[in-house]
Amino acid sequence: MSKKKSKIKRPKAITPKGFRDYFDEDVVKRQALIESICEIYELYGFEILESSAVETVGALGKFLPDVDRPNQGIFSWQDEENEWLALRYDLTAPLARVYAQHRNDLPLPYKRYSFGPVWRNEKPGPGRFKQFYQCDADTIGAHSTVSDSEMCTMLASIFETIGFSKDQYTIHLNNRKILDGVLEEIGILNNSDSDRDKETRGIVLRSIDKIDRLGHRGVRDLLGSGRLDDSGDVTEGAMLSENQIDLIMKFISLHESSNKKTLEELQYLVSKSAIGLLGIKELELIVELTEAAGYLEDRIRINPGIVRGLGYYTGPVFEADLNMKVLNSDSTNTEIGSVAGGGRYDDLVKRFTGQEVPATGLSIGIDRLGFALNQLDKKQEMKRNGPVIVTIMDMENILEYQKIVIELRSSGIRAELFLGNPKDLGKQLKYADQRNSKLAIIAGSQEFEKGNVQIKDLELGSRISSTIKTNQEWKGQPAQTEVSRSDLVEHIKKLIITS
Amino acid sequence: MSKKKSKIKRPKAITPKGFRDYFDEDVVKRQALIESICEIYELYGFEILESSAVETVGALGKFLPDVDRPNQGIFSWQDEENEWLALRYDLTAPLARVYAQHRNDLPLPYKRYSFGPVWRNEKPGPGRFKQFYQCDADTIGAHSTVSDSEMCTMLASIFETIGFSKDQYTIHLNNRKILDGVLEEIGILNNSDSDRDKETRGIVLRSIDKIDRLGHRGVRDLLGSGRLDDSGDVTEGAMLSENQIDLIMKFISLHESSNKKTLEELQYLVSKSAIGLLGIKELELIVELTEAAGYLEDRIRINPGIVRGLGYYTGPVFEADLNMKVLNSDSTNTEIGSVAGGGRYDDLVKRFTGQEVPATGLSIGIDRLGFALNQLDKKQEMKRNGPVIVTIMDMENILEYQKIVIELRSSGIRAELFLGNPKDLGKQLKYADQRNSKLAIIAGSQEFEKGNVQIKDLELGSRISSTIKTNQEWKGQPAQTEVSRSDLVEHIKKLIITS
Repeated sequence: MSKKKSKIKRPKAITPKGFRDYFDEDVVKRQALIESICEIYELYGFEILESSAVETVGALGKFLPDVDRPNQGIFSWQDEENEWLALRYDLTAPLARVYAQHRNDLPLPYKRYSFGPVWRNEKPGPGRFKQFYQCDADTIGAHSTVSDSEMCTMLASIFETIGFSKDQYTIHLNNRKILDGVLEEIGILNNSDSDRDKETRGIVLRSIDKIDRLGHRGVRDLLGSGRLDDSGDVTEGAMLSENQIDLIMKFISLHESSNKKTLEELQYLVSKSAIGLLGIKELELIVELTEAAGYLEDRIRINPGIVRGLGYYTGPVFEADLNMKVLNSDSTNTEIGSVAGGGRYDDLVKRFTGQEVPATGLSIGIDRLGFALNQLDKKQEMKRNGPVIVTIMDMENILEYQKIVIELRSSGIRAELFLGNPKDLGKQLKYADQRNSKLAIIAGSQEFEKGNVQIKDLELGSRISSTIKTNQEWKGQPAQTEVSRSDLVEHIKKLIITS
Repeated sequence: MSKKKSKIKRPKAITPKGFRDYFDEDVVKRQALIESICEIYELYGFEILESSAVETVGALGKFLPDVDRPNQGIFSWQDEENEWLALRYDLTAPLARVYAQHRNDLPLPYKRYSFGPVWRNEKPGPGRFKQFYQCDADTIGAHSTVSDSEMCTMLASIFETIGFSKDQYTIHLNNRKILDGVLEEIGILNNSDSDRDKETRGIVLRSIDKIDRLGHRGVRDLLGSGRLDDSGDVTEGAMLSENQIDLIMKFISLHESSNKKTLEELQYLVSKSAIGLLGIKELELIVELTEAAGYLEDRIRINPGIVRGLGYYTGPVFEADLNMKVLNSDSTNTEIGSVAGGGRYDDLVKRFTGQEVPATGLSIGIDRLGFALNQLDKKQEMKRNGPVIVTIMDMENILEYQKIVIELRSSGIRAELFLGNPKDLGKQLKYADQRNSKLAIIAGSQEFEKGNVQIKDLELGSRISSTIKTNQEWKGQPAQTEVSRSDLVEHIKKLIITS
């Protein structure tokens, strides 16, 4: 009994399942990427907003595609007053809440950008975590399709600014209104049975959105009587007839040789639907405006197969794919695919206010985009340089070492005193190596008496020992030099610049 | 019944109680502040880490001062596998978990900085929110007091870099080891009844930490038989005798005229305690090293009244106060007080690994520090300039407007097309005003035919209408000029530079 008591139960040092930590270079690179994107958002006149990470569940609403899962894919809990709170699952639903709450103090239209982590309680997978970064821009209060076109132009501009070439990305463009037109043509959305129609529309949207994963056969099943998956689970279908399914499949499979031809074909498909025709007009304007901005149909492409999974879209929608294959560790290739998307969502603010407030936006998935950028530029994977390490020979001289490190920092040189156990110089230099430091400073009582210190060039040292064979060569490139203490900073500056 | 059903229940557009949103200038200023701090952390050789915002409750541990509250002051929930998860309440507990988890891949010592939101489920108050920002630096694996002194030097350096003068801040320094020495002197912490001693030590710490709020009388009550607060609630006391309480009160009230004298007095107080004397030795070294770095006792001050509320500290602790009064909206003054603090916590990693891993760190409360900076420099409260607004006279010419805005952006000029309802030019200019834009571009078919556009200088316009009285003066400073379309970008550039 007493033995049992003395055994201490230690907490496990692990992140919760599906979460991870980000170290040095990863964070630095992500920050640089976000900064580049935000500069473009700024250039387009957007201003920044940071909303609370925690929202009431009511304010967030239920718009995630996987509505069948427990908790609707969010992290939620009850506070002391029994109110349900949750972590935001995107930056759009919170924006609608912010706008409804603060609309009297905000300009109209309100153009804002945001970045930050969002959380989804979904099944994690390779490269897929429960916490990930988004970087969004949205315009609230703009009815005009010009604002939708701005989203596409801006997204194209971002890709080309951060380092992708014209042929490495495609922005696929569609309009939910045209899909509504198709549904009208097949006798759904006739307003006589509005609730049921909405439900059918929802199932159709989610089914189409799964085409990449399930293929045409799977989508047809979901549009019809339902689908039996590998695990034996049955997903309910939209119960459409074969004719109805044929028309939807024809719509989403349209791939003409030019935007103009695709628009002509779409016109034919929804010729009797006013909403469908309006959707086509909007796409025509977007194509015109993005072309005027220099982004032609090689990059902005009408693609009726794109519908976006989220439930709140009402008009133009778009999705940006990277046309890049990445090499996996097992030598297979994977398409990077979608890294950004967005569209018009005119009813999201209305949920709160009862008044229609048009809105359109763009969301960039930073983690996947950053991964693609790394693949593009392998140099980016280089470890960044560590600080100058001031080693410690004996603690008696600690004030001298302190003065050296303070002097270096005052000159803007990243430097640190070795803070571990100083008894072994070898260990201190090994630490410098681990930090990828180029220079170490070494001085004992002997050097201090002479008014000198030693500078060790760690990079040169490892280069010399790996490439230089003769003593003659070695002499010309000393990896360790003794310099006057008073000239130390100047020497270090030179060594940092020339290296 | 059917009437009731048709009434739609709308979600409330509010942040959860104690949470808030941050708009444009607030975010920009906070980012700039965090950037300045992180630059110093970098200069001192620290590297960045971003740990998961969500942790297991077990990994976080229970170290918050208000242990009496429900949920221990954190936001927590159970996942599908019944594991308790929580939002991090600081950046230190997660660091201990990260280090324990990844220690084989990290340099030793591991010097890392982090910034980001943390969440506490505590009672919100004026300027006190449940989500707030911290910006921390910590060194894991350094036993040496040199690393504690580095924290103090770095913090002083940060204050002076971001704009505070020498007399506007004080870093109060103490050592938990000296308090342990005092407890030894009064017969507590004699190792014979370790658990009970730990508990008493905890009550003593939390009591001392409340001195600002409860005063000497309140702290004496808490050290003795307990305290009855205004609401009638009783807080359990440490049950110490009057003599014991006297010594503790003497310890925390020591305020000598110099660090040297305070250290002498402390030496007298704990003369028979080895741990107490070690604590004094450590403070002596910190004082020597910070003085060598140029930070004298006007800024780094030994103050035995500082113990820090968090339960995990084991050695030197410090707290930085701003010696500034701020004017409240009701014309009263408030001391800003503590904006940063930290100390040594040698046992936090041991919780996970069983092996002792020394550690010391520093945490800056960004929100309060930012508030103080704003008070210091009222200019910072200025609204930043909005983009150049390209107004829309008629949608027929939308492609021309699009080309103008794209041209401006290509030249690096922040610009936007007006995206609201364009039917009223006045409303468009009012929008430009709301955005604090300096310039608007106006052009209709007439101007386009002539190959011209109008530039309206909104700032000059409002200055003219408020200060210039005669027509003569007005003519010389036209707030609206017609320029050639082809020279537009050059004109705008000049106007932005000269304004």
